[in-house]
Amino acid sequence: MPITSTVQSILRNYEGETPGVKAQLVRMLMQGRLGGTGRMVILPVDQGFEHGPARSFAVNPAAYDPHYHYQLALDAGLSAYAAPLGPLEAGADTFAGQIPLILKVNSANSLLPSNMPKTQAITATVDDALRLGCAAIGFTIYPGSSMSLEMFEDIAEMRKEAALKGVATVIWSYPRGEDLDSKGETAVDVTAYAAHIAALLGAHVIKVKLPSDHVSQAEAKKVYDAQKIDVSSQAARVRHVVQACLGGRRIVVFSGGAAKGEDSVIQDARDIQAGGGNGSIIGRNVFQRPRAEALALLDQLVSIYKQR
Amino acid sequence: MPITSTVQSILRNYEGETPGVKAQLVRMLMQGRLGGTGRMVILPVDQGFEHGPARSFAVNPAAYDPHYHYQLALDAGLSAYAAPLGPLEAGADTFAGQIPLILKVNSANSLLPSNMPKTQAITATVDDALRLGCAAIGFTIYPGSSMSLEMFEDIAEMRKEAALKGVATVIWSYPRGEDLDSKGETAVDVTAYAAHIAALLGAHVIKVKLPSDHVSQAEAKKVYDAQKIDVSSQAARVRHVVQACLGGRRIVVFSGGAAKGEDSVIQDARDIQAGGGNGSIIGRNVFQRPRAEALALLDQLVSIYKQR
Amino acid sequence: MPITSTVQSILRNYEGETPGVKAQLVRMLMQGRLGGTGRMVILPVDQGFEHGPARSFAVNPAAYDPHYHYQLALDAGLSAYAAPLGPLEAGADTFAGQIPLILKVNSANSLLPSNMPKTQAITATVDDALRLGCAAIGFTIYPGSSMSLEMFEDIAEMRKEAALKGVATVIWSYPRGEDLDSKGETAVDVTAYAAHIAALLGAHVIKVKLPSDHVSQAEAKKVYDAQKIDVSSQAARVRHVVQACLGGRRIVVFSGGAAKGEDSVIQDARDIQAGGGNGSIIGRNVFQRPRAEALALLDQLVSIYKQR
Amino acid sequence: MPITSTVQSILRNYEGETPGVKAQLVRMLMQGRLGGTGRMVILPVDQGFEHGPARSFAVNPAAYDPHYHYQLALDAGLSAYAAPLGPLEAGADTFAGQIPLILKVNSANSLLPSNMPKTQAITATVDDALRLGCAAIGFTIYPGSSMSLEMFEDIAEMRKEAALKGVATVIWSYPRGEDLDSKGETAVDVTAYAAHIAALLGAHVIKVKLPSDHVSQAEAKKVYDAQKIDVSSQAARVRHVVQACLGGRRIVVFSGGAAKGEDSVIQDARDIQAGGGNGSIIGRNVFQRPRAEALALLDQLVSIYKQR
Amino acid sequence: MPITSTVQSILRNYEGETPGVKAQLVRMLMQGRLGGTGRMVILPVDQGFEHGPARSFAVNPAAYDPHYHYQLALDAGLSAYAAPLGPLEAGADTFAGQIPLILKVNSANSLLPSNMPKTQAITATVDDALRLGCAAIGFTIYPGSSMSLEMFEDIAEMRKEAALKGVATVIWSYPRGEDLDSKGETAVDVTAYAAHIAALLGAHVIKVKLPSDHVSQAEAKKVYDAQKIDVSSQAARVRHVVQACLGGRRIVVFSGGAAKGEDSVIQDARDIQAGGGNGSIIGRNVFQRPRAEALALLDQLVSIYKQR
Repeated sequence: MPITSTVQSILRNYEGETPGVKAQLVRMLMQGRLGGTGRMVILPVDQGFEHGPARSFAVNPAAYDPHYHYQLALDAGLSAYAAPLGPLEAGADTFAGQIPLILKVNSANSLLPSNMPKTQAITATVDDALRLGCAAIGFTIYPGSSMSLEMFEDIAEMRKEAALKGVATVIWSYPRGEDLDSKGETAVDVTAYAAHIAALLGAHVIKVKLPSDHVSQAEAKKVYDAQKIDVSSQAARVRHVVQACLGGRRIVVFSGGAAKGEDSVIQDARDIQAGGGNGSIIGRNVFQRPRAEALALLDQLVSIYKQR
Repeated sequence: MPITSTVQSILRNYEGETPGVKAQLVRMLMQGRLGGTGRMVILPVDQGFEHGPARSFAVNPAAYDPHYHYQLALDAGLSAYAAPLGPLEAGADTFAGQIPLILKVNSANSLLPSNMPKTQAITATVDDALRLGCAAIGFTIYPGSSMSLEMFEDIAEMRKEAALKGVATVIWSYPRGEDLDSKGETAVDVTAYAAHIAALLGAHVIKVKLPSDHVSQAEAKKVYDAQKIDVSSQAARVRHVVQACLGGRRIVVFSGGAAKGEDSVIQDARDIQAGGGNGSIIGRNVFQRPRAEALALLDQLVSIYKQR
Repeated sequence: MPITSTVQSILRNYEGETPGVKAQLVRMLMQGRLGGTGRMVILPVDQGFEHGPARSFAVNPAAYDPHYHYQLALDAGLSAYAAPLGPLEAGADTFAGQIPLILKVNSANSLLPSNMPKTQAITATVDDALRLGCAAIGFTIYPGSSMSLEMFEDIAEMRKEAALKGVATVIWSYPRGEDLDSKGETAVDVTAYAAHIAALLGAHVIKVKLPSDHVSQAEAKKVYDAQKIDVSSQAARVRHVVQACLGGRRIVVFSGGAAKGEDSVIQDARDIQAGGGNGSIIGRNVFQRPRAEALALLDQLVSIYKQR
Repeated sequence: MPITSTVQSILRNYEGETPGVKAQLVRMLMQGRLGGTGRMVILPVDQGFEHGPARSFAVNPAAYDPHYHYQLALDAGLSAYAAPLGPLEAGADTFAGQIPLILKVNSANSLLPSNMPKTQAITATVDDALRLGCAAIGFTIYPGSSMSLEMFEDIAEMRKEAALKGVATVIWSYPRGEDLDSKGETAVDVTAYAAHIAALLGAHVIKVKLPSDHVSQAEAKKVYDAQKIDVSSQAARVRHVVQACLGGRRIVVFSGGAAKGEDSVIQDARDIQAGGGNGSIIGRNVFQRPRAEALALLDQLVSIYKQR
Repeated sequence: MPITSTVQSILRNYEGETPGVKAQLVRMLMQGRLGGTGRMVILPVDQGFEHGPARSFAVNPAAYDPHYHYQLALDAGLSAYAAPLGPLEAGADTFAGQIPLILKVNSANSLLPSNMPKTQAITATVDDALRLGCAAIGFTIYPGSSMSLEMFEDIAEMRKEAALKGVATVIWSYPRGEDLDSKGETAVDVTAYAAHIAALLGAHVIKVKLPSDHVSQAEAKKVYDAQKIDVSSQAARVRHVVQACLGGRRIVVFSGGAAKGEDSVIQDARDIQAGGGNGSIIGRNVFQRPRAEALALLDQLVSIYKQR
């Protein structure tokens, strides 16, 4: 299938990249109902690692089974399915080649002592991604953490290896650290900075949370005020974050966080679309709903992103 | 010997895995008196490392000799024998090929300063397992410890190497850490979380302790209450833990802890069987009894697990 | 194009170096409007990493796009363009071979906890530099930091690898550390010491900040007084720093820091020229001005450095 | 020379071991006046590292010269000579092949800050042992130290490499650590535990200090009392330690510590012999005596161990 | 040129060493005006790293240029010239093969926070030494520092690699550490201990400072008193240190420290000669004097060491 001109123009931004990586971006951008639009909806299921199995799946016990998520992503016509090693493996034969996979290669959890510096464990490798036929690796960084420099070094190494082996890199960039309060973690300046760092590190796809209109860093505040940077609406903030990713030369997707009302999820997608973001990465709001409801909600998101 | 349909259906859950690993799972699942049933009883003898030689073996001095355990596991018709490098080597020629071996590749001990963060030393390698003809490596993780992320990284690396070399991986998942009190270490939510992490890390066989009905984490408690998760009986808790292991797609065995009454050991096995667990991993309750008593007890356990 | 005698005499100082590295030095020394003069003006754009995207680019939003900087360096006839991996890649095909590139391989950021020992993350490799056709790697050291010994070890390793692979090494030497106050960080003795360390580590090009006339270390102060070392004028301080770099056998370029008045930037260049420095490395004072103003300013700098 | 049946029966305990390692054990067990008896006397000279040269050798200045120890071990008909790299090398040509050598590959010293966690530096490698024609490497572990897990990991790695290269491993197991007082360091339970750990780690020869009758760990004390473990005589304690080493399947030698009276040294050997230990490793009590006295004392030890 | 019998007898002490290393020792022992005498004078120039450029060279500005030191060492007929990577490279072509070079592969500096544990950065490698045609690597250890065990491990690794590649190893052994006061750092017992450690680590040439008559460690003091070890004269202390280096089987050279009077430098050489030391390693006392004075002083040192 020939790629669309929209996808072609996105690809042109990935200068200097290996054909293998470009092929994986094409796989994700041409997959499912959004194929060819330059937009993506990705299903990530690593909340069992982050919050534990019961908090993630008890509300919808069918979701304990990794096959459930593979099938849901397929049936909803999504762009990719992201998960840690264990669950990806558990459906690797059954669903081989049916949907692009993102192997989440590092993870944190809620059993860790609360006063530890924030970081994650690397729990899978690029070779695991190759073996399982994945399109990309997914890696979380915590800009702001005293451990962040090590995380940057790890993903820089893995990105290089992945690119040489024809695997794309998705960076989850979540500000978190000793000098950041919870308001700062979602502040627009901090979010744009975190997205920028992911782009500097060579991410092919960047994932951040939708930011608030708070500006957290004093030095940044001066500039936001002086330059009258518009962060008043969510769409404007999406646009600001996208601009911070090499002037819009990188794919940026946004997550919305904990399960919430359907209206809110849909409004987020409208704002991402309006602000020029490339789509949603949406987990709990999908698999913690009954399957029929989840499919209906995803159908609405896809419809929004299909609009020009 | 052709494998049974029960074993075949277990194997089908190990999608994407190397034939070498599947062959090792078959070796353990087809071994001994439980061969073909999908159930296992494993004899682990690493208590000398954990508690010292006298506390482990003085009550039954024949057990100082590693040959004793090899012979006991064989005579009782068990599924596998697990031990550290030294004792496995000490019978490696005499018992070569007679019973599947699990090389315990990391260990802690009771001489360590009590205020150290909880972790273990890696004392053997995958190549040691190959050289000794082992079916699997065994690795302990301490979810909750400030050292746990390093442990996860170590086993992720070793698991990958082992799988490529046709060796299976058994993870002992024991919650332990700065924010966990002793009640939390055996809480049902924490145990299910720990088992889930082992599954996410790619364990082929997961070993946890039988959990209490305590729910330890505040955020989890809300979900257990809201979703009315049944943890009232031991069988229900076993079922909950098995579900947390990729919806029942992984082999899960349970340990019972310190030496205790025969009735209690037998009741544990009945509950594991009733809850859909795959069996027992039982050490001190075996080798700290006189050999005849131990064989009699194991005979009862095997009989329970042979029931459909 | 045959090289000039000025460039030849600079090259002769790089005894024992690989022809590959010498070729890269020639590329930079023969590039642009200063080609052949032995002087350089380099455009570095890593402030997005250091200070965040808005503080760096909001005043001139065209600069969010990495192509902007490539084009600016080309149009101004500069000697080289330096940036981290992401932005270099983003123009790697469009501008391939048009201007020497310096891949900045380590970076710090302003989200880090303020009480962390000062260091940077290594975010790219020598092989990345090769793949992107770069003339050099750029590496920051923080002499004075408790992490500085590790930074020295890292750049010593990378320099060796780079030289063997025909890539030159530029060291950004910025004093920073637990025993240094902000006055000490720019003191002339400390700056000369930092430049000297870069030279001892094998840097081919050394970048330091223009120092003040403050002498910070007590033991050094005695010598500066006793030997009547002239640090009264900025030109004299430049000369002193150049002398500290193996008696003038290494290329030394100077940066001026935050955006400031045009007159000040020009005076700095005159002093560098008068003191025998090899040129300027100038970022914010260029890209935070409108493009036309920036080109005019660079034109003046180039004219100064073209004077004999 | 054919080996004796005693040596043959010892060798049979080293199941699963490489023929290379077995050959080295034969070399040591067939060497000198105790050749073939299954007993050993080893001369270790690493006290210069531990205590400094003057404290070790000034009382007998001939001992400053490494040749002195080679010659002494030869003339006394001992089983092996153990030392760090420097002194072994200094006689490596002169004495090549005349006596089995044990290369001590890690060492501590008395200049270290007293409040440091107890550990040693690895100062030689398995390849050094090969190059110098050594029969074994010697490695000290400090069970009880917060650094002990790293020491275990280091020796596990080195042991594996050594065995594959046909070099045996001797572990010096010295309890030392933050929670151990000096009485605990030589307690019989702790010593047996330390010897057990060495055996679990795969040591071919285990060296511990002769323990006192003190039982240090509270949990162990209960078992020693309940099981009425006999630790009243030194011979009984030796027997207990030997049993803790895989039920007597490993060679165990004992050291006596600082220089002391001849009677005491001889009594120790009698107790080791009576308790079924494999011999003595004796340093300061030998080389801090005049050569003639040392030879006379060693002659008595050898005579004791030659008794059946 | 055939070597002298004096050099031959020194070489015979380097048993078990590679012919490549022996050839490098011959190069240094046969070089210059002391060639064949078994004595050495070495010019070390790493004070720029240690103290900064102005404190090192401002008193004699010609010394900023690395060529100055090459030429001085040559003109004075010295045995070798030692320096870090940068300055050695800067004359590597001009002076290739004219004088044996020692590449100083680790270095400290005076900008470090004063409360850091004492250690150095490794700033060059054995392969750098090979590439530059060096006879030896030079490595500083700080016995007594909490970082010393890591330093020992590093030099043990590098020494092994160097020896296999035919490069000799010179160890600068400088006691320094948390439990050592400044009097202890130069105490005779501590100096002899530090020299002994260097020998145990396999150094081919050992460099220590001339010690005072202070005995610092309480346990050592007892032995110095009991054994009436003569440390009353500087010559006696030199003899004691040489004895501590494997009974005189290693080359030992002494440094005198900061610039001082000519008479004192000459007296030091006389004492080293009288005590059986192998010579001087002398930096600031040479290059901080005017060239003519320095040559005259070196002429006197050489004359002293030429005496039998």
